[in-house]
This record gives sequence, structure tokens and C-alpha cells, in this order.
Amino acid sequence: MAEKKNSGVINTSFPLKGMGNTLYIVKIGGNIIDDEQKLEHFLKQFAAIGTKKILVHGGGKLATKLAEQMKVPQRMIEGRRITDAETLKIVTMVYAGYINKNIVAQLQALECNAIGISGADGNAILAHKRTSKNNSPGNVAIDYGFAGDIDNINIPLFQSLLEQSISLVIAPITHDKKGQLLNTNADTIAQEIAKGLSGCFDVTLIYSFEKEGVLLDANDDNSVIREIDPGSYKDLKQKQLVFAGMIPKLDNAFSALQSGVKKVIIGKAENLHDLIKGTSGTTIVNE
Amino acid sequence: MAEKKNSGVINTSFPLKGMGNTLYIVKIGGNIIDDEQKLEHFLKQFAAIGTKKILVHGGGKLATKLAEQMKVPQRMIEGRRITDAETLKIVTMVYAGYINKNIVAQLQALECNAIGISGADGNAILAHKRTSKNNSPGNVAIDYGFAGDIDNINIPLFQSLLEQSISLVIAPITHDKKGQLLNTNADTIAQEIAKGLSGCFDVTLIYSFEKEGVLLDANDDNSVIREIDPGSYKDLKQKQLVFAGMIPKLDNAFSALQSGVKKVIIGKAENLHDLIKGTSGTTIVNE
Repeated sequence: MAEKKNSGVINTSFPLKGMGNTLYIVKIGGNIIDDEQKLEHFLKQFAAIGTKKILVHGGGKLATKLAEQMKVPQRMIEGRRITDAETLKIVTMVYAGYINKNIVAQLQALECNAIGISGADGNAILAHKRTSKNNSPGNVAIDYGFAGDIDNINIPLFQSLLEQSISLVIAPITHDKKGQLLNTNADTIAQEIAKGLSGCFDVTLIYSFEKEGVLLDANDDNSVIREIDPGSYKDLKQKQLVFAGMIPKLDNAFSALQSGVKKVIIGKAENLHDLIKGTSGTTIVNE
Repeated sequence: MAEKKNSGVINTSFPLKGMGNTLYIVKIGGNIIDDEQKLEHFLKQFAAIGTKKILVHGGGKLATKLAEQMKVPQRMIEGRRITDAETLKIVTMVYAGYINKNIVAQLQALECNAIGISGADGNAILAHKRTSKNNSPGNVAIDYGFAGDIDNINIPLFQSLLEQSISLVIAPITHDKKGQLLNTNADTIAQEIAKGLSGCFDVTLIYSFEKEGVLLDANDDNSVIREIDPGSYKDLKQKQLVFAGMIPKLDNAFSALQSGVKKVIIGKAENLHDLIKGTSGTTIVNE
């Protein structure tokens, strides 16, 4: 990523400017971040979006790789990283430092004026340290360490920066306003920002990753379900046609729609413009 | 730094509010960053400054330590780090990630609303990659790698954030607007921001570090020179009474004053309020 050069913009403005109050909040997953070419392709499309926009990024394999180099053992429980003090240091360096600043520098090269922030910056995202959970397998309490659950989104700060035509790049690190940084799930951050800003903007929330969308068959990229509403979702779940790993994402999507988010789209990061146009991915609607 | 808690503010507002257009730009050196207690003491005083303020931080030993852990050999020439691609990755992680975000989180705990940025964020500080230098000892060209020399400060961005009562915390990483991050000297960043903003604010530039000020005897903290003007500086240099390492700092100070900066103060980070009051440190004046 360090020596990446600007190799041109796909088109200067997509969708057409003048879309009023539209705000796109795009989450990109770790697999895209780990692939320089895919990331570059995605960022060109993101930069070309002609309306207000926020990019929320996850971490990718870089944190795990750095932990190995630093000989800090990593523990995952139920797919979540246990964030001890050394791991917090690593994710702060990798997410808020390396990944965030390289994405911002690439966006600047694409003439997209962006500011990269963590939840501590401008008190953007307030969280509290997750308490041990007793509903884990065998009722064993899990200490997630410095993992943060979100309490508040600083809506005026986001509004003020977006109104100045600055795009925001959010690293998945929050704080507790007592001086403690916290590691927070990027999907959840995207969702909470979308909910928080849905009172001020027409928010479309896009979860972009390496898959084409919500698939009927996890191994067949052509089995994308184009639209899911509450009725069809219930049906898909009952028939166990939805891949288990997708259920939390879909539950979150419906929760976002119920909180005022206009649209949720799930699909492939490299197809960002097609996701917005509605010609790719899965669109989640409320009715 | 990770578990630091807010232990109270020294006083709520120093100096008294209503100082109009005053802007303090404070550089803190690496030795302060490496010492949690000194840093905490400094940040309490910084947070309590009741006017607009910018903090520029250096790197400290954390980058060197991480490079050792990652087995990335570090080369220093004339006190400057040679920034190869792996070293750029390290300084971006440590400066723009770990140090910057921990300082911001601590300031938030002290009720000082701050945003931490690098030069890429909002296109704040534009630089170009330093070219090899031919005036090195033996006329050997030195390749500094990804080291950046500053071309432009984005004055409207700084103005806009400061006018919103947001304090800025600047990591010494810049960009070239072609997608490349660059490692840039924090003293120089502080000076260039001070010069750039001197047209909009009454700027006082403070270089704070572990020494009491400019000393006549490097080993005697009581030998502080309280005030230096161009005449006395010439005299001190002729008599070789100024510690060699201090000369670039003083040259920079006079250059800043000539560009419109109102005052430059050099002194101990833990004495920040006394430096501002003029009861500690060395004040550099133009006449």
C-alpha cells in the first residue's frame, strides 16, 4: 500500500451530483483491505460517488500478522478477537494508523477530500468496555478485554464535517471518554452511524465484502438473492436457506431500516457503483 | 498509556478565556511521550489552556522499539531516521495510530475536544519526497527514503476546525497527494503550521521538551537564558555558548518570527503554563 500511486478516476462523479440529502455509508471488510488491487478498485469507485459519504473499514489480516511478529498471542472466541492491552495497542496502530491513513492518502490522490478518524477524535463514537458475558457455551463468562460497545454517535460532528464536503474514513476504534481506547466491531459502527445520521440524511448503508451478496448457495456466486423483505427473510430462515454467518448481518440490516435508514445493500466491494444502482448485490427492504 | 484514567484537571481554564485570537501551537518531544507520568502532567496543562490550541507530537522510542520487535533495521543519518518502506509503515502505525489516538483519548477525558490528524487528513499538510542531498559529509548522496519536506499547510481546514473549538493533535506524517504517506520532522511541522496560521491568529509557538529551556551549560538546568533576540543570539553563537543541537531550533524560531509568528518559547513540557506566563523557559523575540 505504501508505494501505491494514483492511476486515475473511473468517472468524475457517480451518482450524478445534486442528489440532495443522500448519504452513503459503506463498510468494507478485511478481505478487501488485504488485497491492494481490490482496495484500489473499490476506492476509485468510492471516491467517485458524488454525494456525502462515509467509509468504515475493518482490520484484515494485518493485525494478526503484526501480532505474530510481536509475539503477542491472539485469542478468538465466537469469531471475536479478545482484546488484551497488547492487542489493543496492535489494533490501534494497524486500524487507526496504517490502514486508515493509507486509505485517506489514496482518496486524496483521487481528489476525494477525506479525514480519517477513530471514535475518540472529536468524541465521534462513545463506547463502554464490554462486560463479561454469561450466555456463552457452558455459561462461562468471557472477558473480551478492551472491546467497546457503542453508547453514542456524535451527530453534530458528523454533520459538520459532511456539510463541509469532507468524506469520513472511520477506523473501528472507539473510546470511553475516560481515556481508554476500545476495539469495536466495524459492522456495528457502520450500523450505529447509519442509524444516528438517519434523522439528518437519506442514508443508504452498504456492507461490501468479497461475496456477490446474500447467497442461496454459499459456493455459488450466481445464487444471489436480489431482494429480501421481512416476509421473505422469515421464510428463508425457516427453510434454513440463509448461510448462518449472514444472519447477524441481516438482523442488523432490518434493525437499521427500522431506525430510519432508507436502504441496506449487501454485496461485492468491487461492484460498489452497481450496488448503488441496484444492479448487483442484495437489497434489504422493510416491506 | 492504554489504561490511563482521567485524574482531574489542574484548573478549568488557563489562561483566562477571552484572549481573542490567540492560538498556541505546542510541540512535544519524544522524551515526554515515552514517560506516561510526564505526558499526563503535560496533557492536563494543555487541556486547560482556554484558547485555541494545536499539539504537534513527535515519535519517541516506541517506533524504534517496534522496529526491533519486527526485525526492521533502523538507520539514522545526522539524527534523522532513514525511512524505508517498512519503517514508513512502522512510523505511520506508531505516530498516527498509537500515540496520536492515545493522546486524543486522554484529552477527551480531560474535557478537551480534540481531533487527531495526519497531514493526509483533509489534505492538511502537503509535502514532497525529499530528494537525495549532496551536501552530506564526503558529498555522498543520502537517500532519506519516504521523508517529506513540506509544501503547503491547508489554512482553511485548520481555521474551520479551530473555529469549532476543536483542538488539533498532529502526527508527524504528511502526504504528497499522489497516494504516498511521508515521514516528516515534527519540529518543522509545528513551525510551518505556525507560519501558515500567523495571518489568521496571534500565534505563540512553543517547543516543549525535557530541558528547562536554552541553557548556557547543557548540564545545568539553572543556566536558562530567559530571553534571546537576534543581537544576543549572534553574540551567543560567536562565543559558542549555545549547545550545537539547539542551533537549528533557534534558527527555526527566528525564521518563524520573521514570518509573522508573535512569540516562540522553548522550555520544559511539564512547565507549560509557566512557559505561557513567561516565568519559565526561553522566550525568543524579534527585537
